[in-house]
Amino acid sequence: MKRIITWILLIAFVLSGLAAVIFAGGDSIEKTGVIITPPAPKFTDTQRRTELARRRAAVAEKMADKSVLILFSAEPKLYTNDVDYVFRQENNLYYLTNLKQKDATLVLFKDGSNVSEMIFVPNRDPRAETWTGRMYSNDEAENTSGIRSINDSANLPAFLNAIKENKPYLAKDGNSYSPQTVYLLLPEGDTDTDGLREFGRENAFSKELPVSKAVNAQPIFAALRLIKSPYELALLQHAIDITTEAQMRSMAMVGRAKMEYEVQAEVEYTFRRRNADFWGYPSIVGCGPNATTLHYEDPQGDIKLGNVLLMDVGAEYEHYTADVTRTYPVNGKFSKEQADLYQIVYDAQEAAAKVIRPGAKFKDVSAAVDGVIKDGLFRLGLITDKNSRQFKIWYMHGFGHWLGMNVHDVGDYSTLLKAGMVFTNEPGIYIREDALKNLPDTPENKAFIAKVRPAFEKYKNIGIRIEDDVLVTNTGVEWLTRALPRKMADIEAFMAKVPK
Amino acid sequence: MKRIITWILLIAFVLSGLAAVIFAGGDSIEKTGVIITPPAPKFTDTQRRTELARRRAAVAEKMADKSVLILFSAEPKLYTNDVDYVFRQENNLYYLTNLKQKDATLVLFKDGSNVSEMIFVPNRDPRAETWTGRMYSNDEAENTSGIRSINDSANLPAFLNAIKENKPYLAKDGNSYSPQTVYLLLPEGDTDTDGLREFGRENAFSKELPVSKAVNAQPIFAALRLIKSPYELALLQHAIDITTEAQMRSMAMVGRAKMEYEVQAEVEYTFRRRNADFWGYPSIVGCGPNATTLHYEDPQGDIKLGNVLLMDVGAEYEHYTADVTRTYPVNGKFSKEQADLYQIVYDAQEAAAKVIRPGAKFKDVSAAVDGVIKDGLFRLGLITDKNSRQFKIWYMHGFGHWLGMNVHDVGDYSTLLKAGMVFTNEPGIYIREDALKNLPDTPENKAFIAKVRPAFEKYKNIGIRIEDDVLVTNTGVEWLTRALPRKMADIEAFMAKVPK
Repeated sequence: MKRIITWILLIAFVLSGLAAVIFAGGDSIEKTGVIITPPAPKFTDTQRRTELARRRAAVAEKMADKSVLILFSAEPKLYTNDVDYVFRQENNLYYLTNLKQKDATLVLFKDGSNVSEMIFVPNRDPRAETWTGRMYSNDEAENTSGIRSINDSANLPAFLNAIKENKPYLAKDGNSYSPQTVYLLLPEGDTDTDGLREFGRENAFSKELPVSKAVNAQPIFAALRLIKSPYELALLQHAIDITTEAQMRSMAMVGRAKMEYEVQAEVEYTFRRRNADFWGYPSIVGCGPNATTLHYEDPQGDIKLGNVLLMDVGAEYEHYTADVTRTYPVNGKFSKEQADLYQIVYDAQEAAAKVIRPGAKFKDVSAAVDGVIKDGLFRLGLITDKNSRQFKIWYMHGFGHWLGMNVHDVGDYSTLLKAGMVFTNEPGIYIREDALKNLPDTPENKAFIAKVRPAFEKYKNIGIRIEDDVLVTNTGVEWLTRALPRKMADIEAFMAKVPK
Repeated sequence: MKRIITWILLIAFVLSGLAAVIFAGGDSIEKTGVIITPPAPKFTDTQRRTELARRRAAVAEKMADKSVLILFSAEPKLYTNDVDYVFRQENNLYYLTNLKQKDATLVLFKDGSNVSEMIFVPNRDPRAETWTGRMYSNDEAENTSGIRSINDSANLPAFLNAIKENKPYLAKDGNSYSPQTVYLLLPEGDTDTDGLREFGRENAFSKELPVSKAVNAQPIFAALRLIKSPYELALLQHAIDITTEAQMRSMAMVGRAKMEYEVQAEVEYTFRRRNADFWGYPSIVGCGPNATTLHYEDPQGDIKLGNVLLMDVGAEYEHYTADVTRTYPVNGKFSKEQADLYQIVYDAQEAAAKVIRPGAKFKDVSAAVDGVIKDGLFRLGLITDKNSRQFKIWYMHGFGHWLGMNVHDVGDYSTLLKAGMVFTNEPGIYIREDALKNLPDTPENKAFIAKVRPAFEKYKNIGIRIEDDVLVTNTGVEWLTRALPRKMADIEAFMAKVPK
């Protein structure tokens, strides 16, 4: 009898095990040490409106007297024919209003100590809503942004004409405005190709204004956005947490992947599942030699045991993007050569962190990184002169950049570090197979190539980047990405828990 | 002893079961009846170049004598600051060359029976390749497209100037060309907002040409692309197969999902994992009332038992997009009301299929659909007059559209159906909560509303669309989406296999 019960139990257990295998779905990976993203930060309506009002007041503070700021929304971008890419609001408009809808426009008038705020949005249209979903009612636009004066965007051309023609504009609030200065987001001259693309409409409008009436609003926003508020940091941390889970999931499944795009699938699955906006920049997933292309975006390569995989990915959440790179061995164990390079990059990150504190300069942090990388490359025989630019053959980018609503965020790099600034700490070494071949054919380079050739042959086709997101605090630095294994031993321990 | 062995076995089995649960990852779902995407179609270089040469010859055939066709690549689209959306090549350029790289330009000269082909691409640049990856060498551009004359795009402005100034252009092939007609992809006039957005560069260039020299090339491509070759059908079928797997995976996991975006994550995970370009249009995943918004794209709603989920999603593969909708009950079982509406839509699809054959007209298929939907809505009490447009309150879109490199593909809807044409068969019924409220306030509408009110209350907030992709064959119609359960009984049987 007991034996029968034992067998029944046995069969039941096995069946339940099998059922669990069959129906586990994507969740089971979470039991391997992957840190599941915590719930998204929640703010009350009052908290949000207070934060947005604070930002608008800070902008108005920096505006000249008798001026107006006009922020247009982003233009929808065409994918093909009648299909658009997923719409993303212009950052500064979002920063001041949290309005996500296209065709929204923000206007701030400053007149002495008085600041008037207006929004233009399209009136709701049941037919449009049947097709593409709910549009803001006036109440919703007001509740979201905290701005009381909500105007039909059909009236926007009349408003813009008044500005162009230097005529007073009688606003819904009963006041009449005659600004002498018009702040617009403008490109930094004719060579700013990104700025010209992003702010083409603003640029065209500025040229219709009386001479020297238009002023670039970008420096105002760059200075403000450089210092993140606690509200902003909560959103950015959430983007980082989603990215941390995505990176961990990729480490946990890479041993079963055959192609780079399968790993990318795991990452972006996590972004969407955790309700990220999506990515802040296209995912970079490169295995073996592909890891030596800095912004590798065509993940068609094989995943090969023995190679490292470089994963530079960032979820975007409520317009804040993470930017996190890990480079880890597909088979879970760094080779001697991979470890040699990895340790240099790791040490360079640590050296950077030691310099970061209020009052330090961005370029001092950069210099600390350069020093460690030069020493390491010299030790390995990959450069012959520490007092030269040779190291830039293998480390061809900067050590980091401001991070926030853009992955390469706005802000002045010559400013002294202050609490609330966030940037990436991301040294790297890339032994590109074509690097020596592409050097100019000079006697110096010939001699250099001859000397580093043995080390080059040993390390070629390995690319290592480690990238963390750091916050300047009152006393030093906080690693916002600290939950994600970074030491070689920690990565190997994490990966040892999952099957190859 | 035996008992000890039994226990050891028991423990081993349970542990192996647990291990499998823990490490199963996303694969286990495949054992629930989900059809895994077969390998991608493979073509030899010769097959590809033969196909592309055939297409180019067919275009040249329709060009006037002494003319030139110029196809520019798509412009990269800005996401924010210095980050672009993922680049997608312009369809017609891809159709004739398979070149995916930006800044590629195709030129076809026709002079009597002689057709010369040229491509302009940027020269390879090691520095650029270090950042963003490999660029085409001349050999690669030639091998991909089958076009022998590969020119540095630095020479493109000189070529375009020659065209503008009506001067002969001495090509690399030694010939001198003086075209009298210039074919460009042009918008259909000033009201074609999509065309103006997509072909702004071509439009601007056409205005710099001598009057009436520019001719719109779109009709040539629309006629050719309307008939899909076997080569094209293999790619389209692959896009459909990926979408079929994605739809099945969503049906298999919806019972465990709490939010719409989790289901979208499962769909897009499948797209990426199966190496689709990605989507052909933003995924539509709407539960309950959200299913009544036709292009619902903000999947922030709850997944609720008792509701149906409408999934309108399409993977794009090598520029061909699927477009497939299924509407299924979250709990795996259609309610009486959901089933009433579903059966009408299903019957409408069947009625459409009966009409589809070579020689039939698109509008005849549409009429067959309308008939079934009118009958059904009348029977349920949702309309009072079958001989009116009342049914459009609940079925507000067309029954289908051409499908191919665009989700709404190019082609003339007045043409007779021919073998090789592909379109969607997608009737729907949407009982929007605000539909009656938004009717104009007339005595007729008041009477109508009073009569349909009871049925409206019964069916409100249910949205049903079923969308299949069909191919006109020599004898009738082939359902390219036939592998995906569509009958209510088949959907319920499929969903019964997975846990709620």
